Amino acid sequence: MTSFARNQWYVAAYGSEIGRELFTRTVCGESILFWRTEAGEVTAMADRCVHRRFPLSEKPSRLDGDTVVCGYHGFTYGADGVCVSVPGQKRVPRTARLASYPVKEQDSFVWVWIGDKDKADEALIPRAPWLDSPDYTTVSGMEPLAARYGLLVDNLLDLSHETYLHGGYIGTPEVAETPITTEVDEKAGVVYVSRHMDDAACPPFYARSTGITGRITRWQDIEYHAPCLYLLHSRIAPVGAPGPREDGSDPDAFHVEVVYAITPETEHSTHDFWAVARDFALDDQEVSHFLHENNRTVVLQDVVALDKLEQVIASEPAGTQELSINIDTGGLAARRILKRMVEAGTAASTAAEPTAAESAAAVR
Amino acid sequence: MTSFARNQWYVAAYGSEIGRELFTRTVCGESILFWRTEAGEVTAMADRCVHRRFPLSEKPSRLDGDTVVCGYHGFTYGADGVCVSVPGQKRVPRTARLASYPVKEQDSFVWVWIGDKDKADEALIPRAPWLDSPDYTTVSGMEPLAARYGLLVDNLLDLSHETYLHGGYIGTPEVAETPITTEVDEKAGVVYVSRHMDDAACPPFYARSTGITGRITRWQDIEYHAPCLYLLHSRIAPVGAPGPREDGSDPDAFHVEVVYAITPETEHSTHDFWAVARDFALDDQEVSHFLHENNRTVVLQDVVALDKLEQVIASEPAGTQELSINIDTGGLAARRILKRMVEAGTAASTAAEPTAAESAAAVR
Amino acid sequence: MTSFARNQWYVAAYGSEIGRELFTRTVCGESILFWRTEAGEVTAMADRCVHRRFPLSEKPSRLDGDTVVCGYHGFTYGADGVCVSVPGQKRVPRTARLASYPVKEQDSFVWVWIGDKDKADEALIPRAPWLDSPDYTTVSGMEPLAARYGLLVDNLLDLSHETYLHGGYIGTPEVAETPITTEVDEKAGVVYVSRHMDDAACPPFYARSTGITGRITRWQDIEYHAPCLYLLHSRIAPVGAPGPREDGSDPDAFHVEVVYAITPETEHSTHDFWAVARDFALDDQEVSHFLHENNRTVVLQDVVALDKLEQVIASEPAGTQELSINIDTGGLAARRILKRMVEAGTAASTAAEPTAAESAAAVR
Repeated sequence: MTSFARNQWYVAAYGSEIGRELFTRTVCGESILFWRTEAGEVTAMADRCVHRRFPLSEKPSRLDGDTVVCGYHGFTYGADGVCVSVPGQKRVPRTARLASYPVKEQDSFVWVWIGDKDKADEALIPRAPWLDSPDYTTVSGMEPLAARYGLLVDNLLDLSHETYLHGGYIGTPEVAETPITTEVDEKAGVVYVSRHMDDAACPPFYARSTGITGRITRWQDIEYHAPCLYLLHSRIAPVGAPGPREDGSDPDAFHVEVVYAITPETEHSTHDFWAVARDFALDDQEVSHFLHENNRTVVLQDVVALDKLEQVIASEPAGTQELSINIDTGGLAARRILKRMVEAGTAASTAAEPTAAESAAAVR
Repeated sequence: MTSFARNQWYVAAYGSEIGRELFTRTVCGESILFWRTEAGEVTAMADRCVHRRFPLSEKPSRLDGDTVVCGYHGFTYGADGVCVSVPGQKRVPRTARLASYPVKEQDSFVWVWIGDKDKADEALIPRAPWLDSPDYTTVSGMEPLAARYGLLVDNLLDLSHETYLHGGYIGTPEVAETPITTEVDEKAGVVYVSRHMDDAACPPFYARSTGITGRITRWQDIEYHAPCLYLLHSRIAPVGAPGPREDGSDPDAFHVEVVYAITPETEHSTHDFWAVARDFALDDQEVSHFLHENNRTVVLQDVVALDKLEQVIASEPAGTQELSINIDTGGLAARRILKRMVEAGTAASTAAEPTAAESAAAVR
Repeated sequence: MTSFARNQWYVAAYGSEIGRELFTRTVCGESILFWRTEAGEVTAMADRCVHRRFPLSEKPSRLDGDTVVCGYHGFTYGADGVCVSVPGQKRVPRTARLASYPVKEQDSFVWVWIGDKDKADEALIPRAPWLDSPDYTTVSGMEPLAARYGLLVDNLLDLSHETYLHGGYIGTPEVAETPITTEVDEKAGVVYVSRHMDDAACPPFYARSTGITGRITRWQDIEYHAPCLYLLHSRIAPVGAPGPREDGSDPDAFHVEVVYAITPETEHSTHDFWAVARDFALDDQEVSHFLHENNRTVVLQDVVALDKLEQVIASEPAGTQELSINIDTGGLAARRILKRMVEAGTAASTAAEPTAAESAAAVR
């Protein structure tokens, strides 16, 4: 049993990463080949030729119109993964096809479905509409993490670490000091964690981007849609400014939507997608540049810490004890939901059939 | 059970690699020390001192006349592997001897026998006489391959990959298009694969070395003597030139003998010896230089692809399925023969005794 | 079962290595945090926060007076390892404490007790009083060894290797030629190996430091206090000089006390502490510099050889045979004592309780 939750949508890439070049990314241990057809549609199929397992993303493999030609022996596949040509013979074996993956572009991300294909349609992909909304300006990136995805879930659901690991960037003493409230929607698989600071120091991340010089009210409202999407609704306003109005508008505050997509690559590595969308200074390139650099620095602080933690945990016996306190309520709820998802996905996949093939490997 | 075929001869080195310096090479997982006696004979013995397992090839170990002195505590061995001196005492323990290996120099190679010594004499070493024949000029090399030897066997027995992986060097469309004929001598353990192209483009490898400017007839006749020796008899002639004569002579064609020795180093690495012998332009240094560089480039293209493939296969569950087609007939036959050889060698070695020693390691 | 002997004192560091910066060193597989209190006392505690296992030696963790603040979420610990503050709540969980280790500074070393804390007091720490005596001048260092500690014990108890591995530094032919005498105090766990050379070449190590130009009498008297402390009492005098007097004084000889502390880091790595104390040329900086460089070179020769040997042994089946001779008597005795210590420590630790914690990890 792996630690991956199957029958789930995952962010595989930004749409901007995938074009007319062969692109590979491993999601939940599956190596997937992505490319865009001449009509602009994203395709996703197994990144292993059915013949001798050569990676189709590896040179001299290449795109030829809407087909992929394997660089080892020339097996050629269409956008649906079906083989259309093999060397040395006219007949293409009936079983020569690559596993294909449901994909969907949404909110600037390319989502891929890991699991049983016929279950993809019934599962909703959570939204992060700010990322391609004209009312917001977004900076984003992706950092490779040499740590299991659970460590990043833990990290993001307990923001008290901002005070220590990210002091001088996004952390101030009030974050660690202020109690949280946690709600869990077990059925939907969503964890909500809120921390409302009424009177807090304004960290450089917000001071320099908003121009606020004094103390602030700072709200952190997390929604974690397990397993992949993490939203942090951040509301910043000078102390004493009016709160949100009854009609839902909130003209006296600054809003930043911090989005993470937490995509397992292998059992011990993770794609750490991050985006910061703001509803102010929309055209200010300097603010964009500042927020990009500052948030990337914060993400890299996490990367260093979690990479180290992965080494620690990987070298310890399984089940080494931890001590949890109030701040961990959200993280523990997330672990519980993920555990259930992993078990459900594993149970479902025991019915799955292996891919057929004309001839199995005789010598290995 | 390993994947190595025991009770077989393997190419360990070119004769030119072994002289009056201690030389080590691992063959089928066995670390072997080679050196040449003052009389010029190649010796082969275990590269581990019987005392504390120090590698005899490791400095400050050294050759002293026809003895090897261990660089750790000075145990000294003769050319037959028998210990002749130990520190601190006059008496040399009776059991102090290194395992020695049958060796034979032939066709520019040093062959070593892996398996039961008393079976070495009855096994014939296959020939590649062109490599040191005055009627041919040979260029050669060895590239380390970070992949199991079976992947190189697969590769060489299915030359349709030349069209894709080696396009612009030795590959043209006709190689992948032209069907093959395969014969197998199960008893001798030899696989024959032939592809005769009557009218094909002339790839740079042959155009520049022979001077042919138009299209060619190109014959590829493979003999694979499992497990180690691979011969590709390549015949090149302008389209329309006469074929071989009844007396066996063939003055109207160019002949290139491409030889590979496929020697397993470990379960996941291989010594990829290659040589190209030609019967034309014998004294043309420029042609020699060109063929050396061009063939080495081709070998390194294989190395890159197979190293990648090894990583893929090593990370997948054993028995991941492949799909085989007509072009794989020779490769599948080779796998079948190798499997039989591995099983036979393993069965024979269950009777083997461990090396005796006065005292076993107490603490490890 | 590990290969570490528990319920033993080990050298963790030189006292000079530990100050007002967080310092980590792994001893017998346990990651230990060391720092000096404001009063100057050395403390030792587990280098893992009880909360989420973050290493307390890892930045941005920091020392704050006599407390350590975890750089991830701010858990704060006193010099006794007890947690005094956690984020987001007033109450500190009762079980929030780091395992602490008995430590003692002696003879310039920081010794740490690995095992059951209540057994530390009854165990004597062996002495190496020369290292901080005003009658001696000492040079010292520590080299990391990528080899199991047993290989260093073997190495140091059989000095015949000086002739081969350290020829031109401390080795001459007489070392390997001269027989040894060995005594074992099984109860105390001490092995004595002596080699007295009456008329030997003077190696550069001693020629250049003492100024002797001719041949020497050279005594090597080893005391190995298993598992950690190795003493080599080296006596050097010109051939024909008077021996030690009846009152124990020995004014006609030069004395060098070579001390090694052999501290297992992991199953496959070792801290190789070395020190050379002399009773002559006490204020001669040039002699100090020479002995430091020369002995460090000798230690690095061992490191290269033993690192290589570790790779050899790690790749071989367990129990691969060795051949032992007279020179190995001391080493075999040491292995026997170590084996007994490992078994005794393992038996004792089966009664140990795991550290309590409020909440165990749910998802891993």
